[in-house]
Amino acid sequence: MTTPLYTPLAASLPSTVPFVGPETQERRLGQPFRARLGANESLFGPSPRAIAAMAAAAAEVWMYGDPELYDLKAALAAHHGCGPKNIVVGEGIDGLLGYLVRLMIGPGDKVVTSLGAYPTFTFHVAGFGGEIIRVPYKADHEDPEALIAAAWAHRPKLLYLSNPDNPMGSHHPAAAITAMINALPPETLMILDEAYIDLAPLGTAPQIAADDPRVIRFRTFSKGYGMAGLRVGYAICAAPLAVAFDKIRNHFGMGRIAQAGALAALADQTWLAQVQARVASGRARLAAIARANGASPLPSATNFVTMDLGRDGDFARATLQALTGLGVFVRMPGVAPLDRCLRVSVGNDAALDVFEEVLPKALKAAG
Amino acid sequence: MTTPLYTPLAASLPSTVPFVGPETQERRLGQPFRARLGANESLFGPSPRAIAAMAAAAAEVWMYGDPELYDLKAALAAHHGCGPKNIVVGEGIDGLLGYLVRLMIGPGDKVVTSLGAYPTFTFHVAGFGGEIIRVPYKADHEDPEALIAAAWAHRPKLLYLSNPDNPMGSHHPAAAITAMINALPPETLMILDEAYIDLAPLGTAPQIAADDPRVIRFRTFSKGYGMAGLRVGYAICAAPLAVAFDKIRNHFGMGRIAQAGALAALADQTWLAQVQARVASGRARLAAIARANGASPLPSATNFVTMDLGRDGDFARATLQALTGLGVFVRMPGVAPLDRCLRVSVGNDAALDVFEEVLPKALKAAG
Repeated sequence: MTTPLYTPLAASLPSTVPFVGPETQERRLGQPFRARLGANESLFGPSPRAIAAMAAAAAEVWMYGDPELYDLKAALAAHHGCGPKNIVVGEGIDGLLGYLVRLMIGPGDKVVTSLGAYPTFTFHVAGFGGEIIRVPYKADHEDPEALIAAAWAHRPKLLYLSNPDNPMGSHHPAAAITAMINALPPETLMILDEAYIDLAPLGTAPQIAADDPRVIRFRTFSKGYGMAGLRVGYAICAAPLAVAFDKIRNHFGMGRIAQAGALAALADQTWLAQVQARVASGRARLAAIARANGASPLPSATNFVTMDLGRDGDFARATLQALTGLGVFVRMPGVAPLDRCLRVSVGNDAALDVFEEVLPKALKAAG
Repeated sequence: MTTPLYTPLAASLPSTVPFVGPETQERRLGQPFRARLGANESLFGPSPRAIAAMAAAAAEVWMYGDPELYDLKAALAAHHGCGPKNIVVGEGIDGLLGYLVRLMIGPGDKVVTSLGAYPTFTFHVAGFGGEIIRVPYKADHEDPEALIAAAWAHRPKLLYLSNPDNPMGSHHPAAAITAMINALPPETLMILDEAYIDLAPLGTAPQIAADDPRVIRFRTFSKGYGMAGLRVGYAICAAPLAVAFDKIRNHFGMGRIAQAGALAALADQTWLAQVQARVASGRARLAAIARANGASPLPSATNFVTMDLGRDGDFARATLQALTGLGVFVRMPGVAPLDRCLRVSVGNDAALDVFEEVLPKALKAAG
C-alpha cells in the first residue's frame, strides 16, 4: 500500500500549524476563559439587525447561497462607489488570501512582507511553494520605504501590507500608502489588507481607483462589523483580477446565512458608528490600564491595544502565560523586537474589568 | 504595468465556469421560480433544533469558530464509530475535494472518474493541472469494473465514485464498493462521495475501517440534513491523511453558526428519519408524475428522480428550457447518453404540485 501519494510540495509542508484557538486553550485549562481578548473579535457583537437577518436565514438554509453573490456584491459596490465587477467575496480574508496566492504564486515565486506580519498570508505562500522575503518593522510600524526597497531588490509578485497593522495596531496615513503604490515595481501586486480600517482614523484609507491593477485591497466583516465567526471577507480590485478568482474559488462556498448577515450588517452603518465609538473608548481604558501597570500602550488604529511591557520576549511570554492561567485570553507578536508586547483586544466593560483585575497579578507572576 | 502575473497554470484555466445558480436564472427571468427542484436541496428543511441552534449561534458570531472543530468532530466520530483523528470537516464536500486535490494532484497527475459525474471534482482537478480520464456510465450506473480497469490502465492518484450517484440517482450495493476498494492499484486513493447516502437503502454504505488508507469517504449536511446553504461537509479517512489537510486548509474557515447547526442536526436523527420517509414518498410521487407523462423514472437512492424522456439530449434540453420559462428550476445531466434525462429534486407537496401542473406543458412546448 503506497497511498496516498502527495505532491512533492504537499509532502514537504510542516504538519504542525500555528493556528491554536482559544477553545483549545480552554480545553487544556479545563474551564472557559473569563475574558476573551486575544483574537481581536468584537465583544460588542454584530448589529441586532444582522443577528435578526442571520436567524431568519437559518430557516432558509436548505437552499444553497447564490454563487454569484449578486445582492451582496451590489451592496458592497454601492458602498464603495465601484462596480460589482470590482468585488470578490470569499470565506474571510484568510480564504481570499489563499485564492490570490494560488492564482499567482508557484514554487520559487517571491513575495515581500514584514517580519512579524499576518502569519496566515505566509502560511498560504509557503503552502504554494513561494519564497518569502521579510522586512523588519521600524518603530513598531511596517516600513514602507524598506518594503519598497525590498520589492525593487527582489521583484516579488506580491507585496503584503496591512494598514492599520496587526499585531502592532499602528497605521500609516493614506498618503504613505498611495506613495507605496506609485513606487511599486511593475510586476508587483500590492496586497493592502484593511481588515481593521473601520476602526482607524478618517483619512487612513487611500483613494484608489477600483480598476487600478497595481493593488488589491481586502476588507472584512470580522472586525468592526463583529462577525468573525461568519466568515465573510471581500476584495476590491481591477475587474480582470476579480474575475480570475472565478477560475478556482469554491463557487457555492458562501452560504445563505453568511450572505444575509453581511448584507444586513453593511446596511446598518449606525451600528458600526456606535462600535467605533465604543472601541475608541475601550482603547483609552486599555491604555490607562497599561500605564497603571507600568506598561506603554502603543497608539492604536484598531480594535486592540498593543502594550510594550518594557522588557524582553521571555517576560512578555511569561506574562501571557500567567494571564492565560488566570482566565484571560490574549495574544502577542511572534518575533523580536515586537514580542516585548502583549496584544489585547478592546473588550466590553465586563471583559476589561477582568483584565484590569488580572494584569497586575500576571506581571507579578512573570516578574 | 504588467501586473498581475498569474502562474502559468492559473493563466491557462478557463474564466467561464459551469456554476450557474437558480438566482441567476431568476434574475434573467425577472421573477422567482415557483418550484426550486434543480439543486437537490431538501425542501423539507433542516431540523427545527438545528434552526434554533443556528439562530442562537448568530448572536455569538462575533467569535471565530473553534479551528479544531473539537465538539463537531467528537460527535461525528461517535456517530461513525471512529476517532476524531479520522474526521476532517470543511466548507462542504466541494471545499474538501479542493483541498484533497491540492494535496495530491499536480500538473500531469491522473485521476479517473465517470463521464458525466460530479463536475466540481473535475473543476478542482483541472484547477491543479491534473489529467482527467473519464469512463462512461453503464446502464445509467457508474461502472465499477470499467473504472477499476481504467485505474489499472492509467494508474491514477485518485479514483472518484459517488454512491449513490449524481446525476442518475442510481447506486451500487455495499459489496460492489468493497470489491472496488479491494481491486484498486496500490497508488490509487478512492474518493467515495456519499453525499446522498442518508437517502439510500440500508446496506448501501460499505463497512470500511476508518484507518483504511485506500479510501476517503465524504459526507455532507447539505442533502438529508437539509443545510446546503450552511456549507458543512466532512471526510472519514485514515488519520495520516486527515492530518495532512491541516497543512493547507483555511483553519478558521468553519464558522460558529456552521458548527452549531451541524452539531444540532446530527443530534436530531429523528428529524432525519422523517426526512427519509418524506423523500421516499416524494420519489414515488415524482415517478408517478413522470409515468403519467410518458417518461421513465429511473430507480433513485437519492433525494431526486432522474427521468428518461425517451428521446435525445436536444429534446431534454428543450423541455428543461420550457420548464424554466414556466417557473420550475430543474437540472439535467450534461453529456450523452445521460442527457436524455431530466433530474428533478424531491420537493414538498406544493413544489410537486407545480411540477405536475407544468411538466405536460413543457413536454408539449419541447415536442
